[in-house]
Amino acid sequence: MDGNLLGNRVITQIGLLVNDIDKTSEAYARFFGVEKPQWFWTDAPEVARTEFRGASSDARAKLAFLDMGSLQLELIEPDANPSTWRESLDQNGEGFHHIAFVIDGMKEKIELLGRNGYPLLQKGEYTGGRYAYMDTFQDLKVLIELLENDR
Amino acid sequence: MDGNLLGNRVITQIGLLVNDIDKTSEAYARFFGVEKPQWFWTDAPEVARTEFRGASSDARAKLAFLDMGSLQLELIEPDANPSTWRESLDQNGEGFHHIAFVIDGMKEKIELLGRNGYPLLQKGEYTGGRYAYMDTFQDLKVLIELLENDR
Repeated sequence: MDGNLLGNRVITQIGLLVNDIDKTSEAYARFFGVEKPQWFWTDAPEVARTEFRGASSDARAKLAFLDMGSLQLELIEPDANPSTWRESLDQNGEGFHHIAFVIDGMKEKIELLGRNGYPLLQKGEYTGGRYAYMDTFQDLKVLIELLENDR
Repeated sequence: MDGNLLGNRVITQIGLLVNDIDKTSEAYARFFGVEKPQWFWTDAPEVARTEFRGASSDARAKLAFLDMGSLQLELIEPDANPSTWRESLDQNGEGFHHIAFVIDGMKEKIELLGRNGYPLLQKGEYTGGRYAYMDTFQDLKVLIELLENDR
């Protein structure tokens, strides 16, 4: 391994799993004295084309974002379909899920990380870009999400 | 509750618990193509004056910091004495522990959060400042650390 695998080390998001996005959004809004963010569903399966552990999944999640200065907190309430969100929430309960980095060249980055021992865990599309969760836990003690936004 | 309880919403650190700070520091250095950070022990008990769940503790930890753009990743390898670090590592294993915010007026902030339902979990001193972990987990799904640096 040489150089920076991501080409970037600025954390852009911290992702948290929650059971009730409305309740947790409200708690954050009160704690930090900001407006309660509006949650929204991730895209429908035919747009998101989610793959989790190599298999297609209809998984969706409710998302809400809070601006925390230099990065965003992302609240994630997953549905019951197979996903890293659902798996982690069932196994570990509510709380931290991942840190995210903006990258260029998703396909190449997934291959590069794979060659370096960090396999793809889940990927999907969203309006305006795509994401991939890479299984970096054993070495880095966190999951890393790659985000690529269309220009 | 009105206004921002912390007077700030810029996350300055993300704290991760690890079993082997040398090994995880090395993994981060390789992954991000940076120099491996040097770890150091937190201050001795007579300086740190650590209190965990209201009782004095001799707990110490090895710490290492990685600059991740707009914030720091803090790696924490606790010793065996009672602390939120040791408790969380034993109960939940390696990984995420807290997010930290720089605040002014530690005593007042601890009282304000306490009055709003967020009790003090652990506090201590370090050369140049002091910290407090507040038990915000039930509402915010993360622990919050307050940091106050002397001027």
